[in-house]
Amino acid sequence: MKVDGKDIRPIWLDEDEKTVKIIDQRLLPHQFAVEELKTPEDAIRAIRDMYVRGAPLIGVTAAYGVYLAVLQDQDDIYLIDAANRIKAARPTAVNLMWAVDKMMSAVVSADDPAGRIAEAKRTAAGITAFEAENCRMIGVHGLPLIKDISRKKGGGEVNVLTHCNAGWLACVEYGTATAPVYAAAEAGIDVHVWVDETRPLNQGSRLTAWELGKYGIKHTVITDNAGGHLMQHGMVDMVLVGTDRTTYTGDAANKIGTYLKALAARDNNIPFFVALPSSTFDWTIRDGVAGIPIEERDPCEVKYVSGLAGDQLQTVLIPPENSPAANFAFDVTPARLVSGFITERGVCEASEKGIKGLFPEYGS
Amino acid sequence: MKVDGKDIRPIWLDEDEKTVKIIDQRLLPHQFAVEELKTPEDAIRAIRDMYVRGAPLIGVTAAYGVYLAVLQDQDDIYLIDAANRIKAARPTAVNLMWAVDKMMSAVVSADDPAGRIAEAKRTAAGITAFEAENCRMIGVHGLPLIKDISRKKGGGEVNVLTHCNAGWLACVEYGTATAPVYAAAEAGIDVHVWVDETRPLNQGSRLTAWELGKYGIKHTVITDNAGGHLMQHGMVDMVLVGTDRTTYTGDAANKIGTYLKALAARDNNIPFFVALPSSTFDWTIRDGVAGIPIEERDPCEVKYVSGLAGDQLQTVLIPPENSPAANFAFDVTPARLVSGFITERGVCEASEKGIKGLFPEYGS
Repeated sequence: MKVDGKDIRPIWLDEDEKTVKIIDQRLLPHQFAVEELKTPEDAIRAIRDMYVRGAPLIGVTAAYGVYLAVLQDQDDIYLIDAANRIKAARPTAVNLMWAVDKMMSAVVSADDPAGRIAEAKRTAAGITAFEAENCRMIGVHGLPLIKDISRKKGGGEVNVLTHCNAGWLACVEYGTATAPVYAAAEAGIDVHVWVDETRPLNQGSRLTAWELGKYGIKHTVITDNAGGHLMQHGMVDMVLVGTDRTTYTGDAANKIGTYLKALAARDNNIPFFVALPSSTFDWTIRDGVAGIPIEERDPCEVKYVSGLAGDQLQTVLIPPENSPAANFAFDVTPARLVSGFITERGVCEASEKGIKGLFPEYGS
Repeated sequence: MKVDGKDIRPIWLDEDEKTVKIIDQRLLPHQFAVEELKTPEDAIRAIRDMYVRGAPLIGVTAAYGVYLAVLQDQDDIYLIDAANRIKAARPTAVNLMWAVDKMMSAVVSADDPAGRIAEAKRTAAGITAFEAENCRMIGVHGLPLIKDISRKKGGGEVNVLTHCNAGWLACVEYGTATAPVYAAAEAGIDVHVWVDETRPLNQGSRLTAWELGKYGIKHTVITDNAGGHLMQHGMVDMVLVGTDRTTYTGDAANKIGTYLKALAARDNNIPFFVALPSSTFDWTIRDGVAGIPIEERDPCEVKYVSGLAGDQLQTVLIPPENSPAANFAFDVTPARLVSGFITERGVCEASEKGIKGLFPEYGS
């Protein structure tokens, strides 16, 4: 996507073909820094410590992590171990497992070291292109939903509420939840986005606001607490979020707090859509609330907040130093609260029937 | 309440009887500073800029604001103007209007200047004592609700979730939502509090965590996003919040985000109680969502966060500097989502019938 007129992606393979480059998203919006990954350990650290985040981008980074492993050693035992270590970097995003498995089956299909390196490079690039194209198609299929609201409002402003960052920074291009918004803006629709700040790591106020601002899309940062009030007062036309893992029955894990917005949308008869590429579906779990593993992260992410003081990034402590904190990273929105899924193949109902209707190859 | 073994209230009249002293709650938990109010303008600033907050404490501060006005000038015209200016300091907490009206009718009942000063002093002290006693009684009436859960859990830990600070810092003693918790702790019940951090001003992580920690009550700070997940997984037994204004029909305005917790409690069959003194009821408004004025505050409160960096209080900017933000301070939880009200006279159903059953003197 364009940032200040320059085309940029959140991840790319350097010309030397030995270095993977990423934007260090921990520092945005106040610092734009590019980090180099040269080993699978670098990729694991980038995923675990959230230099990169967002289900599709975690998958692409994991794919390049496998590529970096193959560059180091083409031996089965080493590669299987590296693959498992990469998979363990974060527990919730299913794209991580999906991408590593896809990489490994491609790599082991080649017999000689050079062939394995070539396969790894080709497959990682393929996964990257697949995710970019998926996001483009999510925009194509999501656009009519926004267009429809715009028409009903006589061309008036369409207010979309989003939680966390499911933009191009979380993917490769376009984003998932933001793809229909970018498509609407391109189509000349008057669109405005309520950006949940998304505590504790503020991916909304830091990343989504930055993305939308750079693209020139109207937006307003709000606290995560505000959405219910806005919905009660007719100030939200549609909720659009991404997901880190969605069961084939339609239960959607996403950034903690998404479930609360889904409840408020339901209580106020506002459509609540989840945008995702097929790589984010989990075809093995039936009950998302019981079955999707929810990552618990360092409580310090809740207690400390980073931001800009003068021209320096500074971290400040909010609660009393000795107060304990808990940091659950995701929650699961049950299918019954989801109006529909926007995928690269179209929009479907949040049910096994709806999902497998679009993706019959996964039907049992 | 005891802080480090010393009895303290969030507001008191100095021995000179000309100075009202308050804790500057903007600086807690990292700095404990006492501020002096000498004029009604000082009281207005303390309320508007949130040195003090919480419906009962806003009422008590407003009462002392009228007292400070009477000290300056006992003339009707001056006093009516001062009263109106104090009432306009914040729009949502109805205790503000209630306390000022109570002060004014007492003051004008006296004819001479000395009598007016004496009436103002007596009435402000009376309102203070009334609110302290109300909170004590809320604890008495709320305790059985917690005791009941404890018994059902065979004496196991009772997990209460609260939003914002409705503790003694928001009142005079005991708090509203915290009064039953303190009473439960005194009764030897194993109680633990999930403390919503309460963005944007972090009254939960800054004030409630500090209060509970000083009292020695087990607590865990969580983001405002986390409550739904905790409720889905059986980690919350009861939600207990305060309110800034509750209609006689049972719609409860409270800190922004409360409505989202009420929805989650309902979706998971968890009791959701609102604790309030009768001074927080609005006997004139039928529909809370449509009728209660919701304060919109400076967007900078959303964009900037204050906390401790080293041993200094520091403010940091989170989103891009040019991203707009919106800052609605309260939302309204409809009566249908409230399990009941805990008042100084007992617990009642969230309905006109329930509320007027306890307070028949306001019945039409």
